[in-house]
Amino acid sequence: MGTRKEHDFIGELEISNDVYYGIQTFRAVDNFHMTGRKIKDYPFFVKAFAQIKKAAALANKEVGVLDAQKADAIAKACDKLIAGEYLDQFVVDMVQGGAGTSTNMNANEVITNIALEIMGHKKGEYKYLHANDHTNLGQSTNDTYPSSIKVATYAKLTDLLKAMELLRDELRKKGSDFKDMIKMGRTELEDAVPTTLGNTFNAFASYIEADIENIKQARELMTSLNMGATAIGTGINCHPDYKFVVEKKLTEITGVEFKPAKDFIAATQDTADFVAVSGALKTAAVRLSKIANDLRLMNSGPRCGLGEIELPKMQPGSSIMPGKVNPVIAEVVGIACYEVMGNDITIMLCSENGEFELNAFEPGIAYAIFNSIIILENATKTLAEKAIRDLKPLPENTLKAVLNSVGIVTAFNPYIGYENSASIAKEALDTGKAVGDIAIERGLLTKDEVDKILDPKSMLNPHMGK
Amino acid sequence: MGTRKEHDFIGELEISNDVYYGIQTFRAVDNFHMTGRKIKDYPFFVKAFAQIKKAAALANKEVGVLDAQKADAIAKACDKLIAGEYLDQFVVDMVQGGAGTSTNMNANEVITNIALEIMGHKKGEYKYLHANDHTNLGQSTNDTYPSSIKVATYAKLTDLLKAMELLRDELRKKGSDFKDMIKMGRTELEDAVPTTLGNTFNAFASYIEADIENIKQARELMTSLNMGATAIGTGINCHPDYKFVVEKKLTEITGVEFKPAKDFIAATQDTADFVAVSGALKTAAVRLSKIANDLRLMNSGPRCGLGEIELPKMQPGSSIMPGKVNPVIAEVVGIACYEVMGNDITIMLCSENGEFELNAFEPGIAYAIFNSIIILENATKTLAEKAIRDLKPLPENTLKAVLNSVGIVTAFNPYIGYENSASIAKEALDTGKAVGDIAIERGLLTKDEVDKILDPKSMLNPHMGK
Amino acid sequence: MGTRKEHDFIGELEISNDVYYGIQTFRAVDNFHMTGRKIKDYPFFVKAFAQIKKAAALANKEVGVLDAQKADAIAKACDKLIAGEYLDQFVVDMVQGGAGTSTNMNANEVITNIALEIMGHKKGEYKYLHANDHTNLGQSTNDTYPSSIKVATYAKLTDLLKAMELLRDELRKKGSDFKDMIKMGRTELEDAVPTTLGNTFNAFASYIEADIENIKQARELMTSLNMGATAIGTGINCHPDYKFVVEKKLTEITGVEFKPAKDFIAATQDTADFVAVSGALKTAAVRLSKIANDLRLMNSGPRCGLGEIELPKMQPGSSIMPGKVNPVIAEVVGIACYEVMGNDITIMLCSENGEFELNAFEPGIAYAIFNSIIILENATKTLAEKAIRDLKPLPENTLKAVLNSVGIVTAFNPYIGYENSASIAKEALDTGKAVGDIAIERGLLTKDEVDKILDPKSMLNPHMGK
Amino acid sequence: MGTRKEHDFIGELEISNDVYYGIQTFRAVDNFHMTGRKIKDYPFFVKAFAQIKKAAALANKEVGVLDAQKADAIAKACDKLIAGEYLDQFVVDMVQGGAGTSTNMNANEVITNIALEIMGHKKGEYKYLHANDHTNLGQSTNDTYPSSIKVATYAKLTDLLKAMELLRDELRKKGSDFKDMIKMGRTELEDAVPTTLGNTFNAFASYIEADIENIKQARELMTSLNMGATAIGTGINCHPDYKFVVEKKLTEITGVEFKPAKDFIAATQDTADFVAVSGALKTAAVRLSKIANDLRLMNSGPRCGLGEIELPKMQPGSSIMPGKVNPVIAEVVGIACYEVMGNDITIMLCSENGEFELNAFEPGIAYAIFNSIIILENATKTLAEKAIRDLKPLPENTLKAVLNSVGIVTAFNPYIGYENSASIAKEALDTGKAVGDIAIERGLLTKDEVDKILDPKSMLNPHMGK
Repeated sequence: MGTRKEHDFIGELEISNDVYYGIQTFRAVDNFHMTGRKIKDYPFFVKAFAQIKKAAALANKEVGVLDAQKADAIAKACDKLIAGEYLDQFVVDMVQGGAGTSTNMNANEVITNIALEIMGHKKGEYKYLHANDHTNLGQSTNDTYPSSIKVATYAKLTDLLKAMELLRDELRKKGSDFKDMIKMGRTELEDAVPTTLGNTFNAFASYIEADIENIKQARELMTSLNMGATAIGTGINCHPDYKFVVEKKLTEITGVEFKPAKDFIAATQDTADFVAVSGALKTAAVRLSKIANDLRLMNSGPRCGLGEIELPKMQPGSSIMPGKVNPVIAEVVGIACYEVMGNDITIMLCSENGEFELNAFEPGIAYAIFNSIIILENATKTLAEKAIRDLKPLPENTLKAVLNSVGIVTAFNPYIGYENSASIAKEALDTGKAVGDIAIERGLLTKDEVDKILDPKSMLNPHMGK
Repeated sequence: MGTRKEHDFIGELEISNDVYYGIQTFRAVDNFHMTGRKIKDYPFFVKAFAQIKKAAALANKEVGVLDAQKADAIAKACDKLIAGEYLDQFVVDMVQGGAGTSTNMNANEVITNIALEIMGHKKGEYKYLHANDHTNLGQSTNDTYPSSIKVATYAKLTDLLKAMELLRDELRKKGSDFKDMIKMGRTELEDAVPTTLGNTFNAFASYIEADIENIKQARELMTSLNMGATAIGTGINCHPDYKFVVEKKLTEITGVEFKPAKDFIAATQDTADFVAVSGALKTAAVRLSKIANDLRLMNSGPRCGLGEIELPKMQPGSSIMPGKVNPVIAEVVGIACYEVMGNDITIMLCSENGEFELNAFEPGIAYAIFNSIIILENATKTLAEKAIRDLKPLPENTLKAVLNSVGIVTAFNPYIGYENSASIAKEALDTGKAVGDIAIERGLLTKDEVDKILDPKSMLNPHMGK
Repeated sequence: MGTRKEHDFIGELEISNDVYYGIQTFRAVDNFHMTGRKIKDYPFFVKAFAQIKKAAALANKEVGVLDAQKADAIAKACDKLIAGEYLDQFVVDMVQGGAGTSTNMNANEVITNIALEIMGHKKGEYKYLHANDHTNLGQSTNDTYPSSIKVATYAKLTDLLKAMELLRDELRKKGSDFKDMIKMGRTELEDAVPTTLGNTFNAFASYIEADIENIKQARELMTSLNMGATAIGTGINCHPDYKFVVEKKLTEITGVEFKPAKDFIAATQDTADFVAVSGALKTAAVRLSKIANDLRLMNSGPRCGLGEIELPKMQPGSSIMPGKVNPVIAEVVGIACYEVMGNDITIMLCSENGEFELNAFEPGIAYAIFNSIIILENATKTLAEKAIRDLKPLPENTLKAVLNSVGIVTAFNPYIGYENSASIAKEALDTGKAVGDIAIERGLLTKDEVDKILDPKSMLNPHMGK
Repeated sequence: MGTRKEHDFIGELEISNDVYYGIQTFRAVDNFHMTGRKIKDYPFFVKAFAQIKKAAALANKEVGVLDAQKADAIAKACDKLIAGEYLDQFVVDMVQGGAGTSTNMNANEVITNIALEIMGHKKGEYKYLHANDHTNLGQSTNDTYPSSIKVATYAKLTDLLKAMELLRDELRKKGSDFKDMIKMGRTELEDAVPTTLGNTFNAFASYIEADIENIKQARELMTSLNMGATAIGTGINCHPDYKFVVEKKLTEITGVEFKPAKDFIAATQDTADFVAVSGALKTAAVRLSKIANDLRLMNSGPRCGLGEIELPKMQPGSSIMPGKVNPVIAEVVGIACYEVMGNDITIMLCSENGEFELNAFEPGIAYAIFNSIIILENATKTLAEKAIRDLKPLPENTLKAVLNSVGIVTAFNPYIGYENSASIAKEALDTGKAVGDIAIERGLLTKDEVDKILDPKSMLNPHMGK
């Protein structure tokens, strides 16, 4: 297809006509060899960028600073990107310098060349449509880039929430199925008082519900955009009405209620909303990892562990130990959570180190927060489908353990006092005797009383014994 | 005053009659030599514990399981603690094993002995009032300890919010005072387009407002308590009505609307609400540290730096360089923020590592979250009073810099296009010429146009030039 | 005792004659209300500072820039501080702005006033001896402060190493005592193949040995000092020979081989050696926490857990559950480790945020690294003395579990292949049969072969079965 | 090419004959959708695994437990992988459960099927060569997987060290070129005393040298392997001589001196050596980030910043501000460093959460540590080649700033004392006068003395003025 010459104020380069991106993308590809992860590996981000660019073009048309032909061509080009076409043209490393300018210019260049073709021109004929003067009109990297990250984050958080709802439902179902299966409660890993397997899974479901609330709240922070702020928030080179129109267009395009930030100067330089979102993700990771750890512990065995549940057998567990099966799903969920926790630090560091009117480290934030949401969504869905859905309780084991325990002596307190109960517990542990027998031997309780008090079911609800 | 003998199921110890705490506190002091920071170094925590214990006693009285004389004595003893008396009796290291049992027992023992004296008995006459059977009635460490941390955290967050409001107000005042002082905006530390010192301080104020919102939201998580959950959430040994009554009493005592958690099993084992609160604190630390960094940069000089503001001179800056003054308040604020960020990791780790029905690492959470709030409150207040309130702008410097800058060429875009502007910028940088002069020389703009476009004030608001 | 007037270039203040510190300390106390932790709460740091100041005075005397009378008075004053006197005069908050200037001036002022009294003068008669001109002669905060932190860190790491050697020895002893006690090995919490309790404790000892090596290596980084660098490393206002003499004096005073850094400019601005030391501490915390976690798991029970060991009973475990004993020492060790991990972040942040010729956040580093070493030393010693020394193995339990396990089928591999073994394992798990019986039933092995192969002891060492 | 049927103890699957991997890889691909990053995206890891497997085959041959034909076929298959062939067969997600079993089995299956073809058989004819019984003979995931991570980490650290040496050399060159260019030294961002641009770049070079030392030390930790430990370190199913032979073979294959760990039990469960390596990487990231930050500050401008250097112009800096150039390389280096700091947390978490005889989270460690080394190597090389090599000093600017400064008053101290100097500094700042002129006016120094003392060059080295 031959080549075309493109120039910027650094100089001139020959670009293959194969590609829709231009000289600035070309330089960025050369400058940033960092992770090997390109923008195209994050299709939802390309989609968000195209939504932003389309909204900007339509807003510029509406406020009268961009002619309809150009605006419509840009909008059509964006529609193609939104539909997933031309994804391979987004070739810059996600981790880049320049506060995202290379991503914005990659988008501007690709959209411009697609639009040029739509308009009947050739790629590179920028006199008909210019990446900076038209596609980027009234915009700056400094408003489109953080806004696109927010639009993309909002969308992916919505996906994550769906996965969390799935997990919550699977857990609730187990909570209900297992509600009568008595199980030893443990505090500080030591035998405490009885609970049920249903309680355990319902508590896990409650964890997820708490996180769904947190993440929904945090997601709201992503709806406040600085489109129209341009370079530093003063709105230089942008039509005064644009900022209201562009948000409206974006809301139409995405179906999400976006709104202009109250303080555009602050909104352009401040990235701490991403720290807040990551904080919610990390909180969810803490809870998810706790669930995964408890599953691994309850599943431990098959003969020398706690043996309270049996996770689905997903794959042989060992290259050397025949028949061994490991809780691989719970394990990989743990790693996913630790990834999220690590990313949280990266996001904090990128956010904290920005100076003055713009944070230069935004690409680090985008990379880390996208990776966090992706892996958390994958982990959540995987846990729901491959660990919770088909797990089996082992209620005979759990009941046997409770009946054999000493912790049930706690139920004697309201009748005979803490100190008498402690003394019985001590004797039970030293001798192996049952706590009820000792209470009877000592004349503190009758057999009938013991039977009534130690009915495990009666220990499962608030009561004072009397 | 002599000694008394106390025993528990581990054995017997002689305790000085000087002290109100008993054998379990004594053992804990001996067991935990960790930080040297005692419970008494956190008076608001002692106060919260006393509020909880008072609420429990009154609730037990109301549901009819504790006689009025005992309940009232306990309540009176708690009132003394709430008033700040007997603080020195809380002697256990904040960092302790046992999921806070030693803190709960320290409270139970001290309250019991104070109450015994109120009842006309001697310390140690536990037959009249027993730390476990009465003061801890219907309670467990596993509900009172996390609940007390929440009550204390709520109270300290409220103090922090006051400090943040103070800082916000000081910043807003500067935003208003400096609103006409033109200043170079910088993106990626490079000259961008003009802004004002007022914009800068208003943006800082907007930061703090965002954090106030976040922290208020997070504070709500602290109002959901598990009082009545007892050991593991099943409410064993607790009157069924107690949980509703105790929250009501606590609300009366504290003036804060506390409520029972929806899922007591989850609430007893899950500490991730503290992770969420710490996430909000960390987000605030990120923003506060960014403010402190920008202040340091703007204050840099006096001759070889940016010299845009002058922070108040708090102390000589050097033991060797005479007359040197450093931005010590902005610096110490930075360190405070890094402390908060470190504590966030500790809280995350403590929370993530809990197993089953209880998190054994809660004391680590309490220690870290209290330290975070204290230092953030101190830093916020210090910044407001010792750095912002009396800082001086240097508007002559900032205006001179803007007029000397190249970045203002951006304002030419809507008239002559991005590429022409870029070419002018290049020549200006190479030759030292003013951008306006070059535009005129090239016949792209007239002198009148240049003057109008480059009026810095016209660059401070959204406009398209036309 | 009345007051004296002191002045600096900020102004004048009245100082009580009670105190040895002067106007700059006074200002710093007022400026920095952050943690409530004062320099005096870290006596080893005061000692290190005094050692540095003494070395400087003697070096200045030797190179001929400070007269003997003054130098000797300063040295004697330092000796008093080294002996622990006047500790209460170090009143500035550990977390302070000014890169430690307030700590250096606190030391300069206290030493000067003590020396003045030694010389027969009164506090405040600075014409005879001046805090800046004499006590700080040839010095700057920027060399004395980081050097003192290094001297102090070296000393505390040496204390930590002693605690680690104690723990290592206690673990080795258990490794030896328990060497014949067979126990189930677990991978991914699932039954694997047999090991011994001795192996477990020997592995723990090997952990500690690895950390001792790491920490010793890291400690070496603390021996390279920048004394003589003065303000920024160029050595301005310092005698050219001083830097060699001062290190020699310091080595004499401390008994530790200190040496001048190769590049004084780098050494004055770079604090990453503390990041490296903290990295070694964090690595140790990771290993220590893993030991604590395994102890908690092995100790779990008494009836419904793994029940492989019994940790010493340190205190009653519950305010509600009579007779409950928790692994409180292992738990508090975990929290201590999480503190170290949190501090590691603080140290990293303080170090990373320094600009140009000096890191302003050094006080944050000092605070965090001292706290890390202190708590790690306390945790290590506590674990050795209160958890390991008196712990009891439960070898009957562990042997029973091994004999009941399926994992031992691994030993069949070399005889009958992985797939046959896997099939036997599956049948054993499904039916509850013993793996040996199935192998015999299937005609794959004889009873004699099974007995020989499944002798647990033969599975404890490398062998191919043939 | 049709399909073949493969089975494991979970069941049977149809596998396309296109692929060299087998049923266990197939299951793993299905189970782990986490990051989208496959083993094949880390070719150096595949190479390391092949080196390990080859060493194992040859060792098994030498100790007489694997016949020569099989061993040689395995070795040849490994050689192909080492040469980079069949890379696309490594299809499992890097983040996986099962402690790396899926990676080990992916390697076992691919090697086995390549070897089968070498032996003249078809893929899947496992009766001639079996993935578990022969390719994995005397091995377990639990020794080959961590050992392969160590071999791969060693190799990549060596690449990183080369990049660091390159950067060090470029920095030293600038240190030498710029050695006479006087520049203001700044402490706490405030003007201090003069230094040179050469000092600055030499200090940066010294930073890198310190890190090279640290990383070389840490790299040594990677040479201690547990090959022969098999499942848990006891060496079950492994020939007693194997562990010595296999390390020797591996050393021959890799050219690196590997050795058996002292304690195989500890080595199999303990992953903290990776925490230590990551600690060294993080320390390097702290220093690299500080360099990048200082470069950005020195480069700030062009008109309203410090303007001390000019970084190479890599790309247009703004989509809206014409002619703007940003320090994009220094910025992306910063992000890279923050990635490393985030990964450090992930590695710590994975390492800390392992239980008993094996750490289930090793795949998380491998993923994070590989990503850290890759990005740090890329950042280091990029900084050397694209920022340092062609940067230009702006010595006229830096000299002018020094001559205009007040901080040079420090040089008066030895002549007129700290307090006189401070008073002069104050007057200079208040009035704008030169410090020398004030000293002369006050009769404290003669013009000749001032000229001599204030000769900036004389301030650049240790001296006492007399």
